[in-house]
Amino acid sequence: MTKNKLNQGAIPGVDAAPDDVRDFIETAYPADLAAWLEEMPHEQMHEQLLALPLPRRAETFSHLEMDVEVELARQLERSDLAEIVTRMHADDRADLFNELTPQEQQLLLRGLAQEERDDIRRLSAYAEETAGAIMTSDYATLAADMTAHEAIELLRRVAPEKETIYRSYVLDPDRCLIGSIQLHKLILAAPDMRIDAIMNAAPVSVALDDDQEDVARMIAHYDLLAVPVVDADGRLVGIVTHDDAADAMQAETTEDFHKLATVSPFSQSVLKASIGVLYKKRVFWLSLLVFGNLFSGAGIAYFEETILAYVSLVFFLPLLIDSSGNAGSQSATLMVRALATGDVVMKDWRDLILRELLIALALGATMALVVFPLGLMRGGPEIAFVVGLTMVLVVMVGSLVGLSLPFLLNKFGLDPATASGPLVTTISDVVGVLVYFSIATTVLSL
Amino acid sequence: MTKNKLNQGAIPGVDAAPDDVRDFIETAYPADLAAWLEEMPHEQMHEQLLALPLPRRAETFSHLEMDVEVELARQLERSDLAEIVTRMHADDRADLFNELTPQEQQLLLRGLAQEERDDIRRLSAYAEETAGAIMTSDYATLAADMTAHEAIELLRRVAPEKETIYRSYVLDPDRCLIGSIQLHKLILAAPDMRIDAIMNAAPVSVALDDDQEDVARMIAHYDLLAVPVVDADGRLVGIVTHDDAADAMQAETTEDFHKLATVSPFSQSVLKASIGVLYKKRVFWLSLLVFGNLFSGAGIAYFEETILAYVSLVFFLPLLIDSSGNAGSQSATLMVRALATGDVVMKDWRDLILRELLIALALGATMALVVFPLGLMRGGPEIAFVVGLTMVLVVMVGSLVGLSLPFLLNKFGLDPATASGPLVTTISDVVGVLVYFSIATTVLSL
Repeated sequence: MTKNKLNQGAIPGVDAAPDDVRDFIETAYPADLAAWLEEMPHEQMHEQLLALPLPRRAETFSHLEMDVEVELARQLERSDLAEIVTRMHADDRADLFNELTPQEQQLLLRGLAQEERDDIRRLSAYAEETAGAIMTSDYATLAADMTAHEAIELLRRVAPEKETIYRSYVLDPDRCLIGSIQLHKLILAAPDMRIDAIMNAAPVSVALDDDQEDVARMIAHYDLLAVPVVDADGRLVGIVTHDDAADAMQAETTEDFHKLATVSPFSQSVLKASIGVLYKKRVFWLSLLVFGNLFSGAGIAYFEETILAYVSLVFFLPLLIDSSGNAGSQSATLMVRALATGDVVMKDWRDLILRELLIALALGATMALVVFPLGLMRGGPEIAFVVGLTMVLVVMVGSLVGLSLPFLLNKFGLDPATASGPLVTTISDVVGVLVYFSIATTVLSL
Repeated sequence: MTKNKLNQGAIPGVDAAPDDVRDFIETAYPADLAAWLEEMPHEQMHEQLLALPLPRRAETFSHLEMDVEVELARQLERSDLAEIVTRMHADDRADLFNELTPQEQQLLLRGLAQEERDDIRRLSAYAEETAGAIMTSDYATLAADMTAHEAIELLRRVAPEKETIYRSYVLDPDRCLIGSIQLHKLILAAPDMRIDAIMNAAPVSVALDDDQEDVARMIAHYDLLAVPVVDADGRLVGIVTHDDAADAMQAETTEDFHKLATVSPFSQSVLKASIGVLYKKRVFWLSLLVFGNLFSGAGIAYFEETILAYVSLVFFLPLLIDSSGNAGSQSATLMVRALATGDVVMKDWRDLILRELLIALALGATMALVVFPLGLMRGGPEIAFVVGLTMVLVVMVGSLVGLSLPFLLNKFGLDPATASGPLVTTISDVVGVLVYFSIATTVLSL
C-alpha cells in the first residue's frame, strides 16, 4: 500500500454555480453522481434522484451505499421504485431485495412485471458468497446455426438491456452452454459465417455453488471480462462479470486482513460501524485468548522457585515470548496469503516445513546474537546463555506453529486465516514459557 | 478466505494420449498452455513452445512465470525470440525487457523493427508501480470527425493488434484525449453519425506518474475495462487495462499482508523464494524489535523489588502484554485495510479516536471481568484488582496506539502498513509493563 489518495471526478460542492451542476448531472459517471447525492440531506437526495433521466437514475441508484439504497427504497413511491428497480442490473436489484424485510419484498415484487419478479426470486435464492449469489442474468445468447450477420443484428436489438455484450454465449436447444464468442470476432468474420465455425467451443465455466473467491481467481487467471455460470445439467444460468468478481475478492481480502488480527467478519464500512458492532466483532477472540494465556501463567507459577532465585530471568520474558510470536506471525501471514492467492497449495506443506526450519534456525541464531550481550549486561554469562539458547528454540517453535496452523485449519475445512497472529502468539507463549524456565532450571542447576 | 481450491482447466499429464494433447494444444487457453509447459523439462518446453502457431505462441509465452520467461528468452534463437516479442502485448514485453541484463536488452532490441524498439524503450522507462509502468500502447484511437461507419471499418483493420477495442479513444490533431466511445455504441449508432456527437466527452484519465493502486481503485470505482493515461499536456500515451490493474492491486495487497507481519516486500512466489531471500526479508524487523523489547526489560528491572515481594504478578505478565498487543493489532489492521480500500481517509482520524476509546473501554472491561476470578484464585483480591485495572488500561493504550500509528505514518508520507502487529505489540508492551507494575506498587503499598 502506498500513501492514500483517492482520485475522484470533480463533484460540485454545495456552493457550485447552477450551470456547473447541470453540466455535472448530464455528463458525470453514475459512481460520481451517487457520491454527489450521498452528500445531500435525505429529502433533497430523493428529489434530485427522481430528476435524473431514467437509465441514469437506475445506474446512479445502484452505485449508492447499500444502507442509503435501502433507506431510499423505503421512502420512494411504489411506482417510482418499480421504475428504477426494473432498469437496474439483475444482480444489483437482487442484492437490494435481500436487504429488505419480507413485507417490503412483497410490496416491491407486486409493483414489478412477472419477468422481473421471477428473476429477482431466482437470483436472491442462492447461498451467499457463491457464483450464484454474485452472477447476473443480463447476458446475450446466440444459437450455433446463426450467421455472424444475424448475430450482430440480434445483439443490436438486445444490447441496451445487457450488462456486457462483448462476449455472447452460444446455447444448444436445451440451453446448454456449447460455446462463446467475442464481439470483435463477430465483426471481423465474414457476414455469412456460421457461429459454430468461429466460436470458442470449450469455454471455461463455473458451477452455481462454486465459491466466489474461486470464481474471481478464474477470471484473473484467464484475463476474462466475465465467466458463465452453469447448473448441474450444464445449462447457462448467469454470468459473473469481472467487476463484481473484483468487488467480491476485495471483500474476501478485507475479511482475511481482519481475521488475521482476530476481528470477526463484518460487512459494513469500518467508518460507519457502530461501537456495539465493533465491540462484538473484536471481543470474542480477545476474551478467548485470555484463557489461552492462562496456561502460560500456570507454567510460570510452576517455576516460581526459579524466578525467585534469578529474578533477572523475568526481564527477558516479554522479549522472548514476543520474538516467538512475531516469527510465528510472519510465517502464518506468508502462508495465509499464499494459500489465498493460490501461490501455495496443500501438498507444498512438506517441502515448506524443512525450509522453514532452516530459515527459523538462521533467524533465531541472529536474534540470539543480538540479545546475548544484553543478557551478559543484565544477568551475567549464565543468564546470557539461557536467554540466547531459548531465543533460538522459541523462534523455531513459533515459526513452525505459524507455518503449519494455516495448513491444518485448511485440512479440516476451516479458514486458514483463522491462524491469526494473536492465536499463534498465544500458542507460542505457552511453549516459550515452558522452554525458557526449563532451560533456566537445568542450566542454573536449580 | 475460504477453503483453498484453484479450479483450473484440464491440463494433460505426462501419460496423456497424443490425441488429447493435440486437442489441448489447439483449444486450450494460453494460461493453461503456459501451466502445461511449466511442468516440462526445459528442452521439451522450448520445443513445444516453438511448435505452437505464432499468435498463440506469443500469448502463451506471456503467461509463463517471469523467471521461466527470462530463462527461455536467453535460450531461444534471436530470430525466434524476436518473432515472439514482436507479437507480445506492449506491456508484457516491456516487463520482460526490464528483467534482462543490459547486454541481453541490446541483443533483443537489435532483432526488432524500429517501431517495437521505440515502444519498448518508452514503456520500460517509467518508474515502477506507476500508471506508466503498467500501461500498454495497444489501444485504438479515432478522430472526432469520423462517422460511426468509418470508425467501425478502421477498428476492423486494426483490431487484431489491439489489446482492447471495446473502448476507443478519440484524439484531437495534437493527440490530446478529447473523448472515448464504446464499441457497442458505434454498432448501435446510425452509420453516418459523427463520433463527437456520440462519444463520452469527459472521460476519466490518469497521469503517467499516478500510483498503480490509485489507478486500480479508479477502475474499480467506475467499473471500467481500461483507463487512459495522459501526459502533462493531456496527450494520450497509453491505457491501463482492468486485468493488469487487478494484478497490480493483488501484488500491493500481498505487500500489505506481509508488512503487517513485519515481512519486507519481495516479488517472488513464496514457494520459490530461497532460504536466503526469506531470511533477509524477515530478519530486519525481528532484530529491530529485540531492541524495542529491551525497554520493557528495563521497566521490569526497575520494579525488581515489587516482583520479589509479589511473584504472582509475573504469572499475569504474558497475559496483560499480549492482550494489549492483540487489541492494538486489531485496531491497526482495521485502519490499515480501511486506508488501503479508501474506506477511511486522513480527516476521519479525529472522529475515530473517540469511538475507539469507548470500544476499548468496553473491551478492556470485559477482559477484566474474565481475568478477575483467575486473579483471585492465583493471587488474592489485591492482585485480582491490580490485574483487572491494568487490563482495562493496557487494552485502551494498545487500541489507541494501533488506531493512531497508521494515520501518523501516512501523515509523514510512510506506508500505513508499517504499523504491523509486532510493532504495535512492542510499543504496547513497554507501556503495559510500566502501567502494570506502577499500579501494583501503588495498590500493594510497596
